[in-house]
Amino acid sequence: MSGPLKISQPVDGETYARILQFYAQQMQLLDERAAEEWAEGFTEDGVFAQNVKPEPWAGRAVIAARMRAGMDRLATRDVQRRHWFGMVAADRQDAGTVLTRYYAMVFETPNGGRATTYLSTTGEDVLVLQDDQWRIRHRLITHDGT
Amino acid sequence: MSGPLKISQPVDGETYARILQFYAQQMQLLDERAAEEWAEGFTEDGVFAQNVKPEPWAGRAVIAARMRAGMDRLATRDVQRRHWFGMVAADRQDAGTVLTRYYAMVFETPNGGRATTYLSTTGEDVLVLQDDQWRIRHRLITHDGT
Amino acid sequence: MSGPLKISQPVDGETYARILQFYAQQMQLLDERAAEEWAEGFTEDGVFAQNVKPEPWAGRAVIAARMRAGMDRLATRDVQRRHWFGMVAADRQDAGTVLTRYYAMVFETPNGGRATTYLSTTGEDVLVLQDDQWRIRHRLITHDGT
Repeated sequence: MSGPLKISQPVDGETYARILQFYAQQMQLLDERAAEEWAEGFTEDGVFAQNVKPEPWAGRAVIAARMRAGMDRLATRDVQRRHWFGMVAADRQDAGTVLTRYYAMVFETPNGGRATTYLSTTGEDVLVLQDDQWRIRHRLITHDGT
Repeated sequence: MSGPLKISQPVDGETYARILQFYAQQMQLLDERAAEEWAEGFTEDGVFAQNVKPEPWAGRAVIAARMRAGMDRLATRDVQRRHWFGMVAADRQDAGTVLTRYYAMVFETPNGGRATTYLSTTGEDVLVLQDDQWRIRHRLITHDGT
Repeated sequence: MSGPLKISQPVDGETYARILQFYAQQMQLLDERAAEEWAEGFTEDGVFAQNVKPEPWAGRAVIAARMRAGMDRLATRDVQRRHWFGMVAADRQDAGTVLTRYYAMVFETPNGGRATTYLSTTGEDVLVLQDDQWRIRHRLITHDGT
């Protein structure tokens, strides 16, 4: 983890709203186990890295397949996960590129049970604008406590 | 629960900021037990549905009265609840109508005790613009784990 | 705690986005234990008050020094804290002054352990615009359960 962004240029209000809506929609897809639609949020050549995985997932098709496999394993446990992003700091690089750093919390509710905290992480994205839609070129998720 | 929104038109930055501020203010009123002021966030004919209730509350006056009754019951326990909305996805229907889907977490702190997670939910609103103020025409809250 | 803001004028989308980005960046600095950079988010004569402290910290230099001391104490415990702000309601006072009221949750992850809720609070800021950057003139944090 590289620490907070050095922010030279915070993004404008329109861009910030679009990025927050993108994050909201994409993670809601994840939590409904729509792995393939969630993976559409990455560029074709996008990379998804996590500090707890030996190597990054490279390419949208790989990202979708690996997430689908993870979801299938999770389906054997009867829980609902909710991924929250917050504290999104953003730095504009150019008209079509934004860096973000944010917090992501995962909450988990077992069927018939009570919500609990599951995981606290930080995220760092390279976002690019494609056809008026922000997509992830590179995401690094770093788990706290590791 | 109908799953993530199919978003055709994300809302612009001004609208998104107004909706987030509306949610913030309205739920802060709830957590201060201002049931009647909280209910002002619904239209006169607004509906508040929860998947854990046998039927929706229909009409602002009914919504206020039912919430007031719930608050009075809660007052017998010495706790502070905090309702957080997050991951707000929004889809513009027309100039005066926006659909949203979001996550809502409730945290609870007992007097003299430590904060805990209480409840994880998803929310789906039909918002309408009245006199330059967004209000809820229909809200559905779906509890996780049910 | 004075309760929810009486909002006469919600801030515009550009201002709201800038304030959220300021909060995100500033609290990420705190969680990386950059006390002095975090304190740059206050005005020179800024005040940081907490309802659990006998008196407020007055002046940026004092705020930085007191936070540095607190961080040094925390460093003896092997935990990662994450400060989340959410539900930010904002009321514009004039072109260079905004009042906010928000929720702040602190999550904590011990090294090798699982994330937990640590603290639920409300915050009330007087923000002022200096050299195109929002800074805190006065912050009051009120812990729930006290």
